[in-house]
Amino acid sequence: MSVAAEQTLLAIVAGGGKLPADVAASVARTGRRMLIVAVRGEADPEALAGFDPVWVEWGQVGRMFEILAREGARDTLLVGSILRRPDFRAIAGDFGTLRRLPRIISAIVGGDDTVLTGVIRIFEREGLHIVGIGDVAPELLIGLGPQGRRKPDTAAKEATDSAAAAVKALGHLDVGQAAVALGRRVVAIEGAEGTDAMLTRVAELRAIGRIGRGDHVGVMFKGAKTSQDLRVDLPTIGPQTVKFAADAGLAGIAAEAGRVVMVSRDETLALADERGLFIAGVPSSKAVPWPNA
Amino acid sequence: MSVAAEQTLLAIVAGGGKLPADVAASVARTGRRMLIVAVRGEADPEALAGFDPVWVEWGQVGRMFEILAREGARDTLLVGSILRRPDFRAIAGDFGTLRRLPRIISAIVGGDDTVLTGVIRIFEREGLHIVGIGDVAPELLIGLGPQGRRKPDTAAKEATDSAAAAVKALGHLDVGQAAVALGRRVVAIEGAEGTDAMLTRVAELRAIGRIGRGDHVGVMFKGAKTSQDLRVDLPTIGPQTVKFAADAGLAGIAAEAGRVVMVSRDETLALADERGLFIAGVPSSKAVPWPNA
Repeated sequence: MSVAAEQTLLAIVAGGGKLPADVAASVARTGRRMLIVAVRGEADPEALAGFDPVWVEWGQVGRMFEILAREGARDTLLVGSILRRPDFRAIAGDFGTLRRLPRIISAIVGGDDTVLTGVIRIFEREGLHIVGIGDVAPELLIGLGPQGRRKPDTAAKEATDSAAAAVKALGHLDVGQAAVALGRRVVAIEGAEGTDAMLTRVAELRAIGRIGRGDHVGVMFKGAKTSQDLRVDLPTIGPQTVKFAADAGLAGIAAEAGRVVMVSRDETLALADERGLFIAGVPSSKAVPWPNA
Repeated sequence: MSVAAEQTLLAIVAGGGKLPADVAASVARTGRRMLIVAVRGEADPEALAGFDPVWVEWGQVGRMFEILAREGARDTLLVGSILRRPDFRAIAGDFGTLRRLPRIISAIVGGDDTVLTGVIRIFEREGLHIVGIGDVAPELLIGLGPQGRRKPDTAAKEATDSAAAAVKALGHLDVGQAAVALGRRVVAIEGAEGTDAMLTRVAELRAIGRIGRGDHVGVMFKGAKTSQDLRVDLPTIGPQTVKFAADAGLAGIAAEAGRVVMVSRDETLALADERGLFIAGVPSSKAVPWPNA
């Protein structure tokens, strides 16, 4: 990033979870000016308190764009989860939202694009430039090699390769960011249930004896879909992932380096160390060769 | 099959489930002589009663091979589930099993081969020729096109293609015989949990609103893995599959024609008709083009 870019304002539209505060803290360390627009009911007031956020109600899209324009924002980062469904009563009170509603609706229901592609287009039509976490806080992405104290052994690398092969085989389809392998056997592939639920399934399959109880090293691999827009939809791992992976008896978590975010990095790595799991970044193009580990 | 083959004895080693009786009934209609060797505690005595089975205890591998040799068996079909783990006390009483034990153990624990490949080799070393359901009762395999009263519409065919694309992408890995798509979105891929558990997961994801509740047509596709030995390890669907698919709100079940067995065909199709699901066979090489349906 150029020095000029670092001196301009960065707008962060913050949804739920720990990640918005992680990003804000990283950006703050670079000295770049920030404007945090936090979505009420989604963003975490406590975690963001130090960053002086401006709060908007859910659905106040018009007000949000007025704030961004008034502050002269251009680079904009959308980060954090949005779990609530739009409340159309809230939208009806915001004339700026109402004016944009046809565009918003067509973004959500229309065409072959994903909702997120539509959302990006709405921001771009307001003259904003959507940036990703990799642009403003690249240290939050998982790097190459072991991230915590534990290192994957040869058997763990084999399991990683098997799980990664499954994820990569599905890369062109809109499914399957993560998979679990025990030894060379892929035992679970993530669908709409999400990573945590997939790991819980592995724990249950072990408990009932449907898969081995520790005779093979188990590893979860998580990567990004080929079609994924990494500016707005980065795969993540965090403390919860470590907890569920440990409960599933896995030896560790491997992730595609540079394309997966580690939320609450210090906490995540401390928990991994405590529970004896490795967390390692593997090269993005394929799972092997491994970096010196 | 040649007339000569039809006149020779067919040995059927029967494990659990309805399929052994389905096969026996089909073979009986051809007039071919049969010898059913049923495994106690696995095979269904009631379903097989009409076929005069010889019963062997679990682990009496020696006795089983003596019976097959005495009756002059050559073509042998292994069919039905084996759920119990070997009981080594039972094996110890069977000297024919004891003599073969090194071979059995190496089949089960050794090398890169699967257990089933090892089992086939054990039978072949006894001079037996392993045949598959497709050789002796091909009408039990799902044929091309709709099998019951319902036919898949265009939307269902699109969903089928999406689910099939996921299964086929994973075909070279030892995972994923089945997947579920809602519209073009693949929402579940089968791992070690099995088909029924995957369908239950889809029902749960719908119940909690994590995936749509009927706004997209849902279809399960089931196929065979590339590496699968279809003589001993055919994917199956049956009444249970229909029940779970219906509970998951799916419009139907598509299966790779000629490579998936329909267990209890009449019952399965009657249940599918009753619950409004289609069951259709799609060409093996790829999911499209569809047969005229």
